[in-house]
Amino acid sequence: MDLLSIKDPSFLRNLSIQELEALSADIRQFLIEKLSKTGGHIGPNLGVVELTIALHRCFQSPQDKILWDVGHQSYVHKILTGRADQFDTLRQYKGLSGFPKHSESEHDVWETGHSSTSLSAAMGMAIARDLKNESSYIVPVIGDGALTGGMALEALNHIGHEKKDMIVVLNDNEMSIAPNVGALHSMLGRLRTAGKYNRVKDELEQLLKKIPAVGGKIAQTAERLKDSLKYLVVNGVFFEELGFKYFGPINGHDFHELIENIQYAKKTKGPVLLHVITKKGKGYQPAESDRKGTWHGTGPYKIETGDIIKPVDAPPAWSAVISETVRKLARTDKRIVAITPAMPVGSKLLGFAEEFPDRMFDVGIAEQHAATMAAGLATQGMKPYLAIYSTFLQRAYDQVVHDICRPNLNVFIGIDRAGLVGADGETHQGVFDIAFLRSLPNLVLMMPKDENEGQNMVYTALQYDDGPIAMRFPRGNGLGVPMDEEFTAIPIGTWEVLKEGKDAAILTFGTTIPMALEAAKELEKQGQSVKVINARFIKPLDEEMLLSILKENIPILTIEEAVLQGGFGSAVMEFAHDRGFHHTVIERMGIPDRFIEHGSVNKLLEEMDLTFEHAVKILHSIIPEKKKRA
Amino acid sequence: MDLLSIKDPSFLRNLSIQELEALSADIRQFLIEKLSKTGGHIGPNLGVVELTIALHRCFQSPQDKILWDVGHQSYVHKILTGRADQFDTLRQYKGLSGFPKHSESEHDVWETGHSSTSLSAAMGMAIARDLKNESSYIVPVIGDGALTGGMALEALNHIGHEKKDMIVVLNDNEMSIAPNVGALHSMLGRLRTAGKYNRVKDELEQLLKKIPAVGGKIAQTAERLKDSLKYLVVNGVFFEELGFKYFGPINGHDFHELIENIQYAKKTKGPVLLHVITKKGKGYQPAESDRKGTWHGTGPYKIETGDIIKPVDAPPAWSAVISETVRKLARTDKRIVAITPAMPVGSKLLGFAEEFPDRMFDVGIAEQHAATMAAGLATQGMKPYLAIYSTFLQRAYDQVVHDICRPNLNVFIGIDRAGLVGADGETHQGVFDIAFLRSLPNLVLMMPKDENEGQNMVYTALQYDDGPIAMRFPRGNGLGVPMDEEFTAIPIGTWEVLKEGKDAAILTFGTTIPMALEAAKELEKQGQSVKVINARFIKPLDEEMLLSILKENIPILTIEEAVLQGGFGSAVMEFAHDRGFHHTVIERMGIPDRFIEHGSVNKLLEEMDLTFEHAVKILHSIIPEKKKRA
Repeated sequence: MDLLSIKDPSFLRNLSIQELEALSADIRQFLIEKLSKTGGHIGPNLGVVELTIALHRCFQSPQDKILWDVGHQSYVHKILTGRADQFDTLRQYKGLSGFPKHSESEHDVWETGHSSTSLSAAMGMAIARDLKNESSYIVPVIGDGALTGGMALEALNHIGHEKKDMIVVLNDNEMSIAPNVGALHSMLGRLRTAGKYNRVKDELEQLLKKIPAVGGKIAQTAERLKDSLKYLVVNGVFFEELGFKYFGPINGHDFHELIENIQYAKKTKGPVLLHVITKKGKGYQPAESDRKGTWHGTGPYKIETGDIIKPVDAPPAWSAVISETVRKLARTDKRIVAITPAMPVGSKLLGFAEEFPDRMFDVGIAEQHAATMAAGLATQGMKPYLAIYSTFLQRAYDQVVHDICRPNLNVFIGIDRAGLVGADGETHQGVFDIAFLRSLPNLVLMMPKDENEGQNMVYTALQYDDGPIAMRFPRGNGLGVPMDEEFTAIPIGTWEVLKEGKDAAILTFGTTIPMALEAAKELEKQGQSVKVINARFIKPLDEEMLLSILKENIPILTIEEAVLQGGFGSAVMEFAHDRGFHHTVIERMGIPDRFIEHGSVNKLLEEMDLTFEHAVKILHSIIPEKKKRA
Repeated sequence: MDLLSIKDPSFLRNLSIQELEALSADIRQFLIEKLSKTGGHIGPNLGVVELTIALHRCFQSPQDKILWDVGHQSYVHKILTGRADQFDTLRQYKGLSGFPKHSESEHDVWETGHSSTSLSAAMGMAIARDLKNESSYIVPVIGDGALTGGMALEALNHIGHEKKDMIVVLNDNEMSIAPNVGALHSMLGRLRTAGKYNRVKDELEQLLKKIPAVGGKIAQTAERLKDSLKYLVVNGVFFEELGFKYFGPINGHDFHELIENIQYAKKTKGPVLLHVITKKGKGYQPAESDRKGTWHGTGPYKIETGDIIKPVDAPPAWSAVISETVRKLARTDKRIVAITPAMPVGSKLLGFAEEFPDRMFDVGIAEQHAATMAAGLATQGMKPYLAIYSTFLQRAYDQVVHDICRPNLNVFIGIDRAGLVGADGETHQGVFDIAFLRSLPNLVLMMPKDENEGQNMVYTALQYDDGPIAMRFPRGNGLGVPMDEEFTAIPIGTWEVLKEGKDAAILTFGTTIPMALEAAKELEKQGQSVKVINARFIKPLDEEMLLSILKENIPILTIEEAVLQGGFGSAVMEFAHDRGFHHTVIERMGIPDRFIEHGSVNKLLEEMDLTFEHAVKILHSIIPEKKKRA
């Protein structure tokens, strides 16, 4: 059918199973074609075609609330709710978001991006529904990977306790982003193969309820019978212990099974867990046969061959440089252990895992556990490397404060995807880390100017013995600079003069260094000389160098790809005022006080005036001012 | 015996059960007497006397690692490791900490304060042990309350998967701080009463293993038999599903049972869970019969009567004023719902719970779930009040960013115990919240000067409809000011002039206002007039008022009971420089860049120069400077 003609999902209720199957094929074809051009989360979406259709057929969205956990699997939902025509702009500036967005559609009742939030949100919605005496179905759809996130488990515990009506759909594709780990995973595996006794059990319970409550021995016997039934049929006992009714396993690509079970769940009181088995990448061979997570999210690809289109001769990815350096150092330092919360692919740790299988720990989506486990390792003299995306480090904030910084333990945190991340958008921008880390005692925070300095910083960090040390590095590829054969340690808290100058100083680090150099060059043409500093240590500052700059009494411009509030620029102001330099002109460039949507990084930088042109403009405005006063 | 003579726990190995029982009585007597004078966590410690003794008898600390989750139940451990003589200084400045501290003793192998961290840390230690080919027992002791914290569940999932040797002691006292909630709690309740089949099951499994692997039918049958056994004996199936061997329930006050089970666990490979049932407050009647959590932690008390000694005519507690105001407003606004992560007593929400049982949700120790559930409620037009201590809000940082601020939802966060908390010390100081919240878009952050402004701020917050709003308030009692009968809304982002002045301005809020007024008064005596501003909105700033102060070209002093890095003072600097006031003298007073240990708040403030005398000193130094330049 013509997917572009879909306005809302109500048409699904009139389709036969055969027509639903035809629709599934059309949607798969559409996704494979569109995403081959834009890139996106192809694997997860191909896996939930039938499930999404079945949910929208059986529930009345948005009165009934379907919550997509993580949200990168909401493309089919977007097609069925009238957004097929926007897929050419997927994940592009001002285009269709790759995640649910309430501003796009009333059917996006819960916005996501980070995993494991849907059950808590659903619980809030269920409480609201009941307090308002409304009736609606609340249907969080959560993956087996997201289920291991601590907050999802907290929510399961609470939902099972309160016994709210809710239909939790466990979308079990046996992988989160990388192949799944954990005891829950093994448990789901046993369930998957255990057969379908649960409906039987439930029907038996219904029957037992009908035994008249005559009191005395018969009632007692019935009760005992019910209790023992729970364990006679062992499937789902884990969820039953948590207060859920378990239905499954259900073939997530079979409309008969899906619809029958959903209808059954709708008639069931209290919290229900539908265990639906799906296959990531279903219907597109290269994605379906992927066992490493490569097809979880990709750039553009050739449909016929499944070759992912990569820029020719691109410099190595930042993550690869960092993880490979950790790997090299691990060859001679047995204390080094690598930890990732479910991102071995994204963090490029597969090489490390291959070489050191017993020193690599993928703990699943469990950032809190990952951070404190690293602390535990450090108490025993190990050198843990915790690889974690900036945006996901937010999940482990308390663990960084309480378990790593407070006891001053030697944990090396690699903050990947720091700064703007582009297409993933506002849930994933790594822009808060400086503000939330800079205020923590004992922590060293740094960012390299290029991948060569990056490898030297890894070397520095793994030699450092005085407490926690964190290195931010951006998403994407390095600059293609030559790499030192031998590593050099960088003295903690030292900056680097990239260019001398006497009319002003730009203090910056990481990705914004090129724009600073360009701005300085432009000023040079106009007869003004601007100092450019690689302020690679965000904490501690290079106090000696900063003091000498302050003594020069020249205006200062700070540039950072991070939020301005409480950021690096503020650290410079704090230092200046604390040392009595109350009269220094300090201007800051950085990310303004709003959430930054998706789009290419360059487009976003432009939109927020984080450009060399703007730097030039500011320098113009502050250098004359200084001259006037001089 | 003379507890003061204990140097380390090795003496326990030579004691008979009778002697251990006598020792238990001595320790209880000691705790009841000492804590009656100092206050402290009496209930949890009386509950673990036998358990602690049994652990130290069966394990060789510190080679074997005993980790106390949360840590407030480590007093008995402190006595057995040679610190009885320091109990007169418990929780006092430079005195014995109320939590495990490695600097106090090598037996404190893991420092805690926040709950649910011990399993992750233990996992790190187990990995280190195995990589170093060492052998030691690793024994985290976690309460049933702490077990519901998401990170503990993340860790269970990982430990069960990796099958590391570890003995997890589940100290089940049927309460966390308040009576426990959640499906896990119900499950533990079933286990408690289910009888002791587990040892039997384990022994059967051992027997079955001895059946020779002759292959074919016999082996298959044995396998099947083993599998079905797991479910025939239903106890602990939840933990068994997660990959643990479950032993329990064990009477935590019976040395025979404790020691026998611990010895059995020591011989068992892989992760073991010992389910130990204890009674909070055991042996001291007032604490033992407490069902509300009052005796979890107390101030000094009269031993004979169990009366807690309270200051006469103290003003109402901050938490009480805030929660009672929420309660009053809830009478006319049905949208108001209160949420607490396990702190109904501390947050003084019992009155609200009594009046609105269906609108009050104690979610257990689950800050992440609490925050996102509040967000879910807000999506449905409800007005959730999330009551949470500053230090525990750190656990929900990502949820505040991603689920509350990003979608701009109307959640009212009451940040209790903001600022210094005193005796609980460095794990509990509420000093980071300004730094980690001020950088978040959409959030309003405020702090009242007194409890009357506090109640008006609650009114303001629950009327506010433009997104998230948070109010900090301190631990302890209000100032005893008269309370308005009618509430008044405070316009968002407006400050208040408390005292006019033309030589300098102090900008401050909350608890530091009195010292600012006192300093201004002192300066007045010396002929200089200092403006004092109640900067009650930390975000957004009162831009109009700040701009007019900046235009006066007078020096500014900011004072805050929070970390200086990225704090309120930095916000003032940022604003001044952004608006081109590069030449304003701005000095900041606040909490320096280190973790602040326990001690009375006044003592701590003095130690870090957060005093009116220091404010006077700074004012002296900046006012003349201004005059010289004028």
